[in-house]
Amino acid sequence: MAVQSVGAISDEPVLSAEELAARLRGVGKERYHHQHPFHLMMHEGKLSRGQMQAWALNRYYYQSRIPIKDAIILSRSEDPDFRRAWRKRVVDHDGDSIQEGGIERWIRLAEATGLDRERVMRCDEVLPAVRYAVDAYLDLVKDRTFLEAVASSLTELFSRDLIALRMDRLRQHYPWLSSGLDYFTARLHQAPEDARFALQYVTEHAHTRAEQELAIAALRAKCDILWAQLDAIHFAYVQPGWPPPGAFRMES
Amino acid sequence: MAVQSVGAISDEPVLSAEELAARLRGVGKERYHHQHPFHLMMHEGKLSRGQMQAWALNRYYYQSRIPIKDAIILSRSEDPDFRRAWRKRVVDHDGDSIQEGGIERWIRLAEATGLDRERVMRCDEVLPAVRYAVDAYLDLVKDRTFLEAVASSLTELFSRDLIALRMDRLRQHYPWLSSGLDYFTARLHQAPEDARFALQYVTEHAHTRAEQELAIAALRAKCDILWAQLDAIHFAYVQPGWPPPGAFRMES
Repeated sequence: MAVQSVGAISDEPVLSAEELAARLRGVGKERYHHQHPFHLMMHEGKLSRGQMQAWALNRYYYQSRIPIKDAIILSRSEDPDFRRAWRKRVVDHDGDSIQEGGIERWIRLAEATGLDRERVMRCDEVLPAVRYAVDAYLDLVKDRTFLEAVASSLTELFSRDLIALRMDRLRQHYPWLSSGLDYFTARLHQAPEDARFALQYVTEHAHTRAEQELAIAALRAKCDILWAQLDAIHFAYVQPGWPPPGAFRMES
Repeated sequence: MAVQSVGAISDEPVLSAEELAARLRGVGKERYHHQHPFHLMMHEGKLSRGQMQAWALNRYYYQSRIPIKDAIILSRSEDPDFRRAWRKRVVDHDGDSIQEGGIERWIRLAEATGLDRERVMRCDEVLPAVRYAVDAYLDLVKDRTFLEAVASSLTELFSRDLIALRMDRLRQHYPWLSSGLDYFTARLHQAPEDARFALQYVTEHAHTRAEQELAIAALRAKCDILWAQLDAIHFAYVQPGWPPPGAFRMES
């Protein structure tokens, strides 16, 4: 229900691979959450420990849904090559016998903020608005075309720079968090690998201009989903600061 | 994914009809959006015309989904008596050959704020977070048990008082809106009728304590959905005031 009409543009000429990549990168410039005021405050060292806890606890719900999202995409592909490549993402987040996954690493970040592991994993203090946004992501990869589902993952094109900056600033402003940064260390190389594969897939499989526009719209929708999570967190815990009934409350 | 565990409570004794009704009313007291700061400001006359526009435009998305929600519930019932009673809700919102429905009346409210009808109906400036919350409501009535789907409508138990107060305050503080209040006039009697029917259904069909707790949790979830919409509107248009990229912007 969130898809904008792209019918009018279908008669326009097909974009070259370079033009399509430029349009996708333009979406990131305009809408990726690196510009969100909550992240700007985080990177300036202006957030309290309670606010960092609220972020870690809420974002855990997103992290916990990532392998589910990727399993949905896996389940929709009939191409073993694609599935093999995509499977890596599930392993990256869920871990294997050799190394722990991103979800466990995120829990350790949350623990470094001072939160109890079980409390985070219960997810019963997650802001409803964060939950809706994350669930909208699952709906997107379930209900839209396969191309759009893949394209929605392309926020990884933009994440490396944000993560590198964040690691630097977290060490600087929140030294008590330093033991919890393994999640980001791993994502520094995982995300660009994943983004390369997905970008190539989208470039090769968006044959018409209409399909290209759908892919761009899916990336925009994903940016909205990330942005809306930070809106909800900022609103409840920074300013004006009223978490809805039942949500995590910061200690005063 | 938002359902809280009610397993632990299943061994408790079944509530009487009066006890169940009291628990349901308790949910309203604690979580219904009559207490939301955006509504409090509205009723004190503190909102600007632009903020009232943002409210009318965003809430239109909710209004437009109500008959879809009710049609989903209709589609899940195998009882013609139930369906006949519930069908009234679809008619109330969509209208018939004799009278216009609630959606048309809401559009006229939005027009009274100074917005163009087509702009409202396009829904392309709706806040993503409002969209997610409303879509979560559709998911709830699709995916949870039929009893929970019906119970989620019980916010109508609480709406009459809020609407009566609102009509009084809108006339007092926003006289330029007076031509747009037909929606609320109709809901003054529609909502209590609907609530009586739904409350009776829930009381008669929640046979076990576990089912009663699920019904209560569904009403709580619906309150969260209404509250989250106002959170998003307040955050984007009142304080601190940054609508996400692409959303409705107030004229400065």
